[in-house]
Amino acid sequence: SRRTMGRAMGLAGLLLGLVLVPAVLVSTGLRHGAPRTEAEPEPSDWELAADAVPADSLWPLPQWVRTSPRQLQLAPSRFQLVHGAGSSAGPGCGLLQDAFRRYYEYMFGHSRRRMRSRRPLVARAEPELSQLQVVIEASDPGCDRHPDLTSNEAYHLTVTEPVAILKAYEVWGALRGLETFSQLVHEDDYGSFLVNESEINDFPRFAHRGVLLDSSRHYLPLKSILTNLDAMAFNKFNVLHWHIVDDQSFPYQSIYFPELSDKGAYSSNLIYSPTDVRLVIEYARLRGIRVIPEFDTPGHTQSWGKGQKDLLTPCYNGQQPTGSFGPVNPILNTTYDFMTKFFKEISTVFPDAYIHLGGDEVDFTCWKSNPEVKEFMKRQGFGTDYAKLESYYVQNILDIVSSYNKGQMVWQEVFDHKAQLKPDTVVQVWMANNYAHELSSVTGAGLTAVLSAPWYLDYISYGQDWKKYYSVEPLNFPGSEKQKKLLIGGEACLWGEFVDATNLTPRLWPRASAVGERLWSSSNVTNLQDAYKRLTNHRCRML
Amino acid sequence: SRRTMGRAMGLAGLLLGLVLVPAVLVSTGLRHGAPRTEAEPEPSDWELAADAVPADSLWPLPQWVRTSPRQLQLAPSRFQLVHGAGSSAGPGCGLLQDAFRRYYEYMFGHSRRRMRSRRPLVARAEPELSQLQVVIEASDPGCDRHPDLTSNEAYHLTVTEPVAILKAYEVWGALRGLETFSQLVHEDDYGSFLVNESEINDFPRFAHRGVLLDSSRHYLPLKSILTNLDAMAFNKFNVLHWHIVDDQSFPYQSIYFPELSDKGAYSSNLIYSPTDVRLVIEYARLRGIRVIPEFDTPGHTQSWGKGQKDLLTPCYNGQQPTGSFGPVNPILNTTYDFMTKFFKEISTVFPDAYIHLGGDEVDFTCWKSNPEVKEFMKRQGFGTDYAKLESYYVQNILDIVSSYNKGQMVWQEVFDHKAQLKPDTVVQVWMANNYAHELSSVTGAGLTAVLSAPWYLDYISYGQDWKKYYSVEPLNFPGSEKQKKLLIGGEACLWGEFVDATNLTPRLWPRASAVGERLWSSSNVTNLQDAYKRLTNHRCRML
Repeated sequence: SRRTMGRAMGLAGLLLGLVLVPAVLVSTGLRHGAPRTEAEPEPSDWELAADAVPADSLWPLPQWVRTSPRQLQLAPSRFQLVHGAGSSAGPGCGLLQDAFRRYYEYMFGHSRRRMRSRRPLVARAEPELSQLQVVIEASDPGCDRHPDLTSNEAYHLTVTEPVAILKAYEVWGALRGLETFSQLVHEDDYGSFLVNESEINDFPRFAHRGVLLDSSRHYLPLKSILTNLDAMAFNKFNVLHWHIVDDQSFPYQSIYFPELSDKGAYSSNLIYSPTDVRLVIEYARLRGIRVIPEFDTPGHTQSWGKGQKDLLTPCYNGQQPTGSFGPVNPILNTTYDFMTKFFKEISTVFPDAYIHLGGDEVDFTCWKSNPEVKEFMKRQGFGTDYAKLESYYVQNILDIVSSYNKGQMVWQEVFDHKAQLKPDTVVQVWMANNYAHELSSVTGAGLTAVLSAPWYLDYISYGQDWKKYYSVEPLNFPGSEKQKKLLIGGEACLWGEFVDATNLTPRLWPRASAVGERLWSSSNVTNLQDAYKRLTNHRCRML
Repeated sequence: SRRTMGRAMGLAGLLLGLVLVPAVLVSTGLRHGAPRTEAEPEPSDWELAADAVPADSLWPLPQWVRTSPRQLQLAPSRFQLVHGAGSSAGPGCGLLQDAFRRYYEYMFGHSRRRMRSRRPLVARAEPELSQLQVVIEASDPGCDRHPDLTSNEAYHLTVTEPVAILKAYEVWGALRGLETFSQLVHEDDYGSFLVNESEINDFPRFAHRGVLLDSSRHYLPLKSILTNLDAMAFNKFNVLHWHIVDDQSFPYQSIYFPELSDKGAYSSNLIYSPTDVRLVIEYARLRGIRVIPEFDTPGHTQSWGKGQKDLLTPCYNGQQPTGSFGPVNPILNTTYDFMTKFFKEISTVFPDAYIHLGGDEVDFTCWKSNPEVKEFMKRQGFGTDYAKLESYYVQNILDIVSSYNKGQMVWQEVFDHKAQLKPDTVVQVWMANNYAHELSSVTGAGLTAVLSAPWYLDYISYGQDWKKYYSVEPLNFPGSEKQKKLLIGGEACLWGEFVDATNLTPRLWPRASAVGERLWSSSNVTNLQDAYKRLTNHRCRML
């Protein structure tokens, strides 16, 4: 229908020249600046206007879009993705070369074979777009680096006859622009590939746009993780928060401590070997996605205890050990010896500047039952405030990890229980109850925050719950401008209690796409009907 | 672990001979006949007892199981599924030949290749089971027939050295017994295939055990339907209720009225051709599954109107037609001419003795707006009771379908609105509100009932909602013994508003397995912990 409408608009387009459609108008249906509630009818030209521009296929919606009804044709046999003149990147840039190959496939992959085998390319009236030239402007394009929190993901895309030009400061922006360009290209009923002349200026609203996967409750085969990284790239996510181990299993194969997975994994083949981990990191890097591993302590560690003797706290019933274990034992030097060595490995294996140290949901029951822990509490002057013991432990771990020059992410309890945190610590807010207040507190203390509370996608319900995720406004919390700047993004979390390879993809996507647009697009991109239309097209494309 | 426990129990087995474990004991954990609530601890020998018998892998649980810790080995290269002496079926029975091939694959498929390529078969101490002999006792085994409501699905299975014997009156019982036998065979850590000596006597509690799939809200590719038929066979379901068309689309390609799908399908390739329909019916037949098509009228028919002029009621605003249409127009002779021809085709294409005629959720608004309908109401003396008009229409359709010697299924409203129904009409109870009362009314009127109300599996929620489906007791409604007999079964319904090929399988299975066991197994098989264990194994096997 997009093409049909494009044709119907052809004459008008010629008469009027370029149709200016700032993205915000397209997305909200506003014509005169007045906000429109959902119940009000759309203007009668709404369908026409939306159909006439390629914006109904873009997700997440770029910050600024100008589009024309004039269409250019792409011939798969001739069209090229190339490095443009003046780019600091060239054929030696493996990351872009890989992206060129990938996006060529996305755009023409299946149809090309069909066209070649069945019929010659039909000569058409439309002018042709022959190239997309990619120009990286920074002196160091970043081809061999890993993305980080400060990566520049902005890009500028112009699609005009005879070549399209994609400019970005770094390769990370080029990756985002390639995704957008591929979303502009569409196939008509006759198998021709078309793109509307357009100009797009785009950049992310938030720097940290993450998806949490949990490979402990259920093991996730590599293929599931890689497929998810593809889907993340389609939605301009840039952080894989890999909740790799937990109580239930320890699939991470440690180089220093192989017994952790030997004993703690569900089985000897349900592990992530060093090669597997490198593959995930590289696959993610090529898509501009950071991999932040989470090694959650001192709670959520039952599986660690199987392969590491004396790491967990023995629980007592009166004077008798019960045989059960609680959180990591915070009173032993051996604990910190182990953690020092363990996190040295993690700091090397995972190149990202941040490690997530967990710190959530520490159950004090076992600590309270243990006579030696009680004695330690007394010596330290903690009284009966076990949150102080937790903070004592966490600060030791923070110090260890800091010594390896890694930044730290933690769950909100670490902040709530008053651990002394370095200013660059990222506090992840997950508790659904009054999360706006928590964001206010965290940023009020000068700390950086990431929001997850409204985006726990493992919770499912009947119907279009994506609208709920979409309608969250992350900055809607009390605080100064400075505080607002400290909220650097959010994460969609897919905890694994009821998720494995059989249902991960259909459960996460396209629901997580709603979070993806909220974190990328402008804050005034909030119209649900427009989002529904674009999301429908986007889902179809992802499939 | 089953095997390890079997070994540990080996000596005890020799001393005690066969361990008698009636299925009910295994499944409920009862040892002394007293009901145990979920919160009470299990007896300490529970794990041992359950692990020592193969019953922890059976789903749905057979009516009667006797098992021994003595294990027999199966050599894939030698083991055979064969027709036993005295069977009325032989190599000419395509249905059984196909089932033999299928179950051989399920039991040995992957491992066989591995064993052949990597190592010779190791000679073991266990005695060998060399054959499963299948004996059909009825003079007509039913190989070329279609299953029906009166099909005999009972079977008797004995597994003893050197041959296992599966006796059934008809092939339908043999299919169920083959599934059970395959569930008994397990692979140990060394790749050996083992089965415990056992005896099983089994039959279904209810004759109608269905799954509803909806191919109108989203088109379901043939592959999804066939995969689901496989899963249904794994769970001893025997009815595919194919809700094939609805408001949203008409994918059924009619022979007499091809325009229905030409105009009413989502697109020209999203249809079920006559060949597709035959394939589904035959694939189902080979698994002992009936295919009951639903052509729901007079409501839920928007898509019919696109390809069949004047079939739907024009809606009016005052004296002006609005251009919109309502339910099927019940006042025109042409409507009944069409339906006569249409259902003649359906009666031929679908061999099942029943057709589902729908009849749910008829919205009277459009009928009320139409002056000709109002005039008709007056002439017929219906006053303003549009339920009478609905019944008038439905009875005409029932008469048409009856003339083709087909039985009828209808949704509960057809009964509620007092249509005169033939005694063999099957009324499907779907409204969640007080469905026990509805069952009481339907069966009190002497009509046959099928229960779906508590099993709408398109509704999803967080966590193990299978327990909710499992805990339904269908016969828990007020009524006489005779009334209870009129409830012939139930259906798990997966409506398609939010279901397509991407999520059908993980959304339906294993949740529908809970319904499968409720409809097959004895009413006292209700222990959730035991069910959880068996369902976990069953899911793993299905995957």
